[in-house]
Amino acid sequence: MIPFNKPFLTGKEGHYIYQAVLSGKISGDGIFTKKCQDFFEKKYGFQKCLLTTSCTDALEMAALLINIVPGDEVIMPSYTFVSTANAFVLRGAKIVFCDSRTDHPGMDEDTIEPLITDKTRAIVPVHYAGVACDMDKIMDLAARYNLYVVEDAAQAVDSYFTGKDGVARPLGSIGHLSAFSFHETKNIMAGEGGMLVINDHQFLERAEIIREKGTNRSKFFRGEVDKYGWVDIGSSFLPSDIIAAFLYAQIENIGDIQRRRSEIWNVYYEKLLPLAGKGIIGLPVVPDFATNNAHMFYITLPDLQARTALIAALKSSEISAVFHYLSLHKSPYYESKHDGRELPESDRYTDCVLRLPMYYELSDNDLDLITGVILNHFA
Amino acid sequence: MIPFNKPFLTGKEGHYIYQAVLSGKISGDGIFTKKCQDFFEKKYGFQKCLLTTSCTDALEMAALLINIVPGDEVIMPSYTFVSTANAFVLRGAKIVFCDSRTDHPGMDEDTIEPLITDKTRAIVPVHYAGVACDMDKIMDLAARYNLYVVEDAAQAVDSYFTGKDGVARPLGSIGHLSAFSFHETKNIMAGEGGMLVINDHQFLERAEIIREKGTNRSKFFRGEVDKYGWVDIGSSFLPSDIIAAFLYAQIENIGDIQRRRSEIWNVYYEKLLPLAGKGIIGLPVVPDFATNNAHMFYITLPDLQARTALIAALKSSEISAVFHYLSLHKSPYYESKHDGRELPESDRYTDCVLRLPMYYELSDNDLDLITGVILNHFA
Repeated sequence: MIPFNKPFLTGKEGHYIYQAVLSGKISGDGIFTKKCQDFFEKKYGFQKCLLTTSCTDALEMAALLINIVPGDEVIMPSYTFVSTANAFVLRGAKIVFCDSRTDHPGMDEDTIEPLITDKTRAIVPVHYAGVACDMDKIMDLAARYNLYVVEDAAQAVDSYFTGKDGVARPLGSIGHLSAFSFHETKNIMAGEGGMLVINDHQFLERAEIIREKGTNRSKFFRGEVDKYGWVDIGSSFLPSDIIAAFLYAQIENIGDIQRRRSEIWNVYYEKLLPLAGKGIIGLPVVPDFATNNAHMFYITLPDLQARTALIAALKSSEISAVFHYLSLHKSPYYESKHDGRELPESDRYTDCVLRLPMYYELSDNDLDLITGVILNHFA
Repeated sequence: MIPFNKPFLTGKEGHYIYQAVLSGKISGDGIFTKKCQDFFEKKYGFQKCLLTTSCTDALEMAALLINIVPGDEVIMPSYTFVSTANAFVLRGAKIVFCDSRTDHPGMDEDTIEPLITDKTRAIVPVHYAGVACDMDKIMDLAARYNLYVVEDAAQAVDSYFTGKDGVARPLGSIGHLSAFSFHETKNIMAGEGGMLVINDHQFLERAEIIREKGTNRSKFFRGEVDKYGWVDIGSSFLPSDIIAAFLYAQIENIGDIQRRRSEIWNVYYEKLLPLAGKGIIGLPVVPDFATNNAHMFYITLPDLQARTALIAALKSSEISAVFHYLSLHKSPYYESKHDGRELPESDRYTDCVLRLPMYYELSDNDLDLITGVILNHFA
């Protein structure tokens, strides 16, 4: 059986967890939490990183930080994970869904502006498959309408956007706030885990408080106050240092991980190119302004029936390939709250995207087998 | 240096984490999450256990499950951790704080009834130091006024309440919902971690959904629906299976851990009894209806000055002893929202409680040293 995903050990996870325990502190903000945060701040130039228990929690922190209140509107793609929306719904926001691009499941940046009202507070671009949205367009809208941008960078570690100024900026460093995931399907992972990135200075102090259950405990530990207490709303967003220790072992190998994932991605692309040439399947598009972090290899089928048939063919060869999101504007929870606009591209990706197995330990033989089954299926 | 707390390894944590990775799934609800949940359900007769990333998150799940909306009132002690309150404040609740007992920091059950209004939705007893509140009184009020009871059992693993019927019931099994903590200071721990216990059948189905980001994914994995989608609000409350694997190694040793902690607790008690006999300090009281799970050993000093002096004396002998909560009704965040009632016992515990080092690996020599410093200090 070739699974869709397989977590792996780089080798030092156990050793680092042991070190964390020896340090005498494995609750949140221990030595490995700081090591992970430092790594991301230095490598990608993020102003401040705060590990969280999940990307969902990082998005919830973002919703608290930008002070979402009932009635506020937040614009995001319908083709995304439920947490992108739920984090803002929990604070009472109305979600205004926009459609995906025709060439890519990411949000169609040109459809955002007409959705902006005087209640709009934020735009949440989702960098699908780690491929950047056009952040020039989105940041320009945010500046003109005085909106916040929260990047859902769940899949976007080690990926870049190059704007009109020619500068390649890491995804997660462009919006006011950004959220990353270290869920086990991600390039760098800890089973469950996430990170909030703060690029706008105004949020730094309150983020520490909200993450520490609404207390000024971080200030206390820095000696800036002589006792700490309840000063704001908040939650427990800190992961155990066991998670951070595990994550750090992965982070140290990010170069090797990214190299291998890119190889896998390129093999898929090259072997399946003939099918795309004949118009039988669609292959991922990486716009000129984006890079490919090899988070995911997906193909698009012409319709739901074709996808279902290919999933079955792969399954009969013991290969697990999986579809992805269902349009949130048509979900049982949100359909009646949606404004009724059709979002045909989102619905198309709902029916037609198929994700192929993608993980570090996927072998060249596995790749031959998978691509062989697909080529045969259409032969 | 004798720290206040020291996490320790039972020996199999690394092995179980390795097993979790080999299983191919270390995201939430993996094999060790199920093992932990099964353990608690069987050992303590909890109807349903769901691991969470923290006790805070378990309390937040409880607030979502009982449908707290703005304006609802929730009664709880002022002398508690900030999360007890924050979890409900995040949903818009007004917190109505009650005072502590004179003999114990737990809520004074006899002061609850006058605080109940037609807006009251829930009572949240906190089993301070793992010592039960009088659950007969609390459950009786809940039944008469149609309120929910959410036990904050953060510190209360492996502790019991014996009611008028003479039956010893595990804490966490009595309220409609209960929340446990596996923070590193707890008897059984994973750095950060928690668990929601569901004792009222009506919450079972929705709890699964809320914990899975508002989706019916659990039903999907059981084959009860053919795809899963967004059906409700929710968040990502599931911990990584790495956390569960670590926790399971601790759980397996619960008997040994509890035995050693009880020994430590009893040594403290016996050595300090003469000081209590002279009225110099107060020792913990365990009411007849409660058991002592040896979560914490605290003493009470006559006033803040006496406590500060003893902390300093211990510190000069390289012993870390720490105070505990600050009355939430006087916190910067809540003081202006509180109704102005004085809660003198809560304020007294704020000033006078001192917690002594308590952890599995605390040696008999350490105990001699700590109690020696305290006895000398008052000689």
